[in-house]
Amino acid sequence: MIVFYGPYSSKLGEKMAKQLNAKSMGIEHKIFPDGESYIRVPINVKGENVLLIQSTYPNQDKRIIELLLMIDALKDLGAEKVKVIVPYMAYARQDARFREGEAISIRTILKLIEAAGADEFFTVDIHKEFSLDILKIKAKNIMAVNAIAEFLRNMDLKSPFILSPDRGGLERARILGEKLGLEFGYFEKTRDRISGAITMRGEKIEFNGRDVVIVDDVISTGGTIATACRIAKEGRAGKVIAICTHALLINNAVEKMRLAGVDDIIATDTVEGEFSKITVAHLLAREVQ
Amino acid sequence: MIVFYGPYSSKLGEKMAKQLNAKSMGIEHKIFPDGESYIRVPINVKGENVLLIQSTYPNQDKRIIELLLMIDALKDLGAEKVKVIVPYMAYARQDARFREGEAISIRTILKLIEAAGADEFFTVDIHKEFSLDILKIKAKNIMAVNAIAEFLRNMDLKSPFILSPDRGGLERARILGEKLGLEFGYFEKTRDRISGAITMRGEKIEFNGRDVVIVDDVISTGGTIATACRIAKEGRAGKVIAICTHALLINNAVEKMRLAGVDDIIATDTVEGEFSKITVAHLLAREVQ
Repeated sequence: MIVFYGPYSSKLGEKMAKQLNAKSMGIEHKIFPDGESYIRVPINVKGENVLLIQSTYPNQDKRIIELLLMIDALKDLGAEKVKVIVPYMAYARQDARFREGEAISIRTILKLIEAAGADEFFTVDIHKEFSLDILKIKAKNIMAVNAIAEFLRNMDLKSPFILSPDRGGLERARILGEKLGLEFGYFEKTRDRISGAITMRGEKIEFNGRDVVIVDDVISTGGTIATACRIAKEGRAGKVIAICTHALLINNAVEKMRLAGVDDIIATDTVEGEFSKITVAHLLAREVQ
Repeated sequence: MIVFYGPYSSKLGEKMAKQLNAKSMGIEHKIFPDGESYIRVPINVKGENVLLIQSTYPNQDKRIIELLLMIDALKDLGAEKVKVIVPYMAYARQDARFREGEAISIRTILKLIEAAGADEFFTVDIHKEFSLDILKIKAKNIMAVNAIAEFLRNMDLKSPFILSPDRGGLERARILGEKLGLEFGYFEKTRDRISGAITMRGEKIEFNGRDVVIVDDVISTGGTIATACRIAKEGRAGKVIAICTHALLINNAVEKMRLAGVDDIIATDTVEGEFSKITVAHLLAREVQ
């Protein structure tokens, strides 16, 4: 098996290859002056089983086009089987028709990955697991919660409380809380589907100086975390840790969270960056063999 | 029939709808803060035959993803037939494997347009027409040369000479020259496939003050046109007009051509912009009925 990785998944690719005891290699890529991507598979893949890792952030559309070009090229060059890993799957939040006439974007993108020639598909903490039902090929969503729990277990925290910033994430907080034997709970968040404006109503939680771990699947603009942090601090939280699977950190997200009082930001390496201190390499390696 | 158009083809879409005496409408679109596109079909399309126009410049990858989302959404919403028009088809220059292992990008993109659900496909002056052979659906490349000839016929030029800046474009110059009863010729251009560097060797043409019309399919960085213009001016050309189908005009392309002595830049509306003075609406309307 050969592990190939795209432009923004080189570290995760290398780690996975080590776990799998496989050869690893970056796909050759560049961007032409007009903005088009160029993709080249650097070695002969005829008859090979290959693993292709490409995250789809930053610059989702470019990453998706590159991914589709890479899959098609690998198959066209004679790869026997192409197992595709998209550690962070973009467009996953548009998973239904919230208003009549909308594109259900995640369904389109997944169908295209299959149409390009993927033989199997793996992703991590996709927004809604049911989105994968559109695929006819083998598909699996891998939960990062085990890796996150392991990391938290080794942190020096004071009687930490696991907090989900919305009801949808309660299940994640519950699993994490139960794994670590910690209390958990959630805030109530409402998002206006058209304007995107968020309102949040905190339950009256008194933290009495206990540390609070806010856990979410994605941190994008940081607004949700910042609001949750403020409410937690009003409830006399000690340290507030924001932990997530996918750290997109758009614009001034980090500054926004810091200003709200977030003491530490921790993420997995599904999106590689400054805060990706937790690896999901072993969780992925176990599943793709 | 309903004519729908994407974000950068509104003027061409409206013109085509007028030619076809059909209702026209923009597809609703926006970009979320994280950079993802949102697509919504604003009216009921159940059982309808629709025409979808979306050019793929500027920002090729975003335009292609939007196009794929639009096609899939239209089909999913019950459109009977979706005829897709991509006036400028991006990625068309990567039409072969110039080096072992390369993605043949245009083939992948066209396959995906078909996989998304397009029933017919139309484009204008695609880099190489044979690229369309990958499609199983009806596909047609429409030449803009008729519209360009019509425009040139009405320009006040002094015994103009039609010049292709490379051998590959000679056929275009020949057709144009013959249509207008004008002399034509070409310069010899070599492009290094890896570095992209261009060298050009002009035939010793003495223009004696005659105007020169440099014709090309795409003007991207303007480098080719600028070089050809310099050689033409050394051969004592009068006015130099640069005319093309697709004006991408990357970075300082316009300035570069002006500095080289180009007196006028003219393009069709396959890419809508300042220089798109020639419409291909009637040529397209005739084909898609």
